[in-house]
Amino acid sequence: METVRDDAGVYARVERFFDETFSTDNPLITEAVKRMLAAGGKRLRPRMTLLAASACGDDADEHLYLAAYMELIHVATLIHDDVVDNASTRRGVNATAIDYGNRVSVLAGDYLFAWIFKNVTANYDAPIPHILSATLADICDGEVLQLRSLGVLDLPVETYVDVARKKTASLFAASAECGAIAAGGSPDQVEALREYGDLYGIAFQMKDDLLDVTADAAAIGKPVGNDLHERKMTIPLILALGTGDAALRARVETYYDGRGGDADVAAIVADIARVGALDLTRGRIADYAARAKAALAPMGASGAKTELERLADALAAD
Amino acid sequence: METVRDDAGVYARVERFFDETFSTDNPLITEAVKRMLAAGGKRLRPRMTLLAASACGDDADEHLYLAAYMELIHVATLIHDDVVDNASTRRGVNATAIDYGNRVSVLAGDYLFAWIFKNVTANYDAPIPHILSATLADICDGEVLQLRSLGVLDLPVETYVDVARKKTASLFAASAECGAIAAGGSPDQVEALREYGDLYGIAFQMKDDLLDVTADAAAIGKPVGNDLHERKMTIPLILALGTGDAALRARVETYYDGRGGDADVAAIVADIARVGALDLTRGRIADYAARAKAALAPMGASGAKTELERLADALAAD
Repeated sequence: METVRDDAGVYARVERFFDETFSTDNPLITEAVKRMLAAGGKRLRPRMTLLAASACGDDADEHLYLAAYMELIHVATLIHDDVVDNASTRRGVNATAIDYGNRVSVLAGDYLFAWIFKNVTANYDAPIPHILSATLADICDGEVLQLRSLGVLDLPVETYVDVARKKTASLFAASAECGAIAAGGSPDQVEALREYGDLYGIAFQMKDDLLDVTADAAAIGKPVGNDLHERKMTIPLILALGTGDAALRARVETYYDGRGGDADVAAIVADIARVGALDLTRGRIADYAARAKAALAPMGASGAKTELERLADALAAD
Repeated sequence: METVRDDAGVYARVERFFDETFSTDNPLITEAVKRMLAAGGKRLRPRMTLLAASACGDDADEHLYLAAYMELIHVATLIHDDVVDNASTRRGVNATAIDYGNRVSVLAGDYLFAWIFKNVTANYDAPIPHILSATLADICDGEVLQLRSLGVLDLPVETYVDVARKKTASLFAASAECGAIAAGGSPDQVEALREYGDLYGIAFQMKDDLLDVTADAAAIGKPVGNDLHERKMTIPLILALGTGDAALRARVETYYDGRGGDADVAAIVADIARVGALDLTRGRIADYAARAKAALAPMGASGAKTELERLADALAAD
């Protein structure tokens, strides 16, 4: 598994919590969760909850369950992402669904959502249960918008940001916000941390898109250009098309219309670099990361605040 | 669409609410919900919420939204039931998944769950949000138990009842309980109505199983013996096997081991009738229906109570 830089020690605490304390009353969930957790991940969402609680002056260890629920919402969405479509089984991948079948994947994800909400409604006062269910609605809404945006070559950057905000940033925002609320943060602190999570999450999605066209396949655990293969409108592609390069546009039109082959993916990846869209993307990421850090202005100095700033810097670093 | 006897007028009120008032902020959900509602159904869960509120002395019309959420939880589970398994696509059916694809079915169901909880947590105090999320967990747990029970020929009746209680009765129990709570019913009334819903729901599942081996295919909208085809352990089959009839046992073993053909389904259906298991099943249904009515003893006389009694009687009638 990857090495995670963990200056504030929260990653280690989350991992230990999942290893030693966390369990559910159902073997199916426990297995599905452990399988997903074992596959890797930086536990960024629970870390954000703990760091937000800590930045508000509370003991992070008091909020490990709440932090764990944030990771589990993410895990449940991943389990459902694994459901194989009839129309797309040829495209492969998808561990849970292939090993257990779609029925069990759907059921395990539903069960996990229900189990989380059952626990959250039992143990946390308003508005935390509402924030989490509204966040799940946002995630689904973002996924629907993304499906509708597939292959829309002239997708405005604003629409891309709206999708990323809902699909990805909403859970980071909720993770930070709920940590702050549970820790008794002031309204200004809660708002600052929510804002941080929102901006961080948008930068995070952009970085994820960037890695799809720059990283080693081994490093990201999926083929390079996988997003393009799925006809997603990623930020490097949108910015590349925005340069007006005719050769790239023609190639993308061919491929996204289904008239191309796998060799076109590599050519599009090369074109994105050629027209300078990698640096344009890096600029956008740096901008959102800087705004995320700036959002933390109302927070007093603390080790947790420093770590939140470092996490934003890490997205902007290459 | 089938004609629904509606002495208390609650079915008509639910239908009018869905037709004229209900809407969501997302076209995908609205379409998925309207499609499911248009396919029929007796709206028993929302009727139970309204009747429970009314039986506690409140105006049923005050609780139409809460009632609608009960139906929508049911609709969301149906949408997810429609997801087609890789391993079982040959068996066919499944409208939503086939028309829209598994991805959209999973997303639409998730979105609907999230949307319901977002609204319930915004508009209803504890314990209603917790009851609903715990109910969803029970439904999923029941479905998992049912998957594990497929083809288990010696399944005890108690295990069958446990599965039916979780998978089916939990939502009826929650529908009645939440209606009573929202209407300000006393603890005794809330408990009585929850108990009614639980017992009604078990009888309802048994009746559903019975119809699978007795009804016209046209009347139930699926092939006769469909449950057997899926290797489910239904109550008529369990009670039929419980008679010790060797010919039936051998036939079921052959079919459930995958060595039989479609003609065996018809033969098993005939055997279930031959060994008297249809009447044994009717006896169980009548027993649960009587217990459901008896649970209403703490409720004062009212038109709503009479209608709840009539609904239980309707399950026991043939």
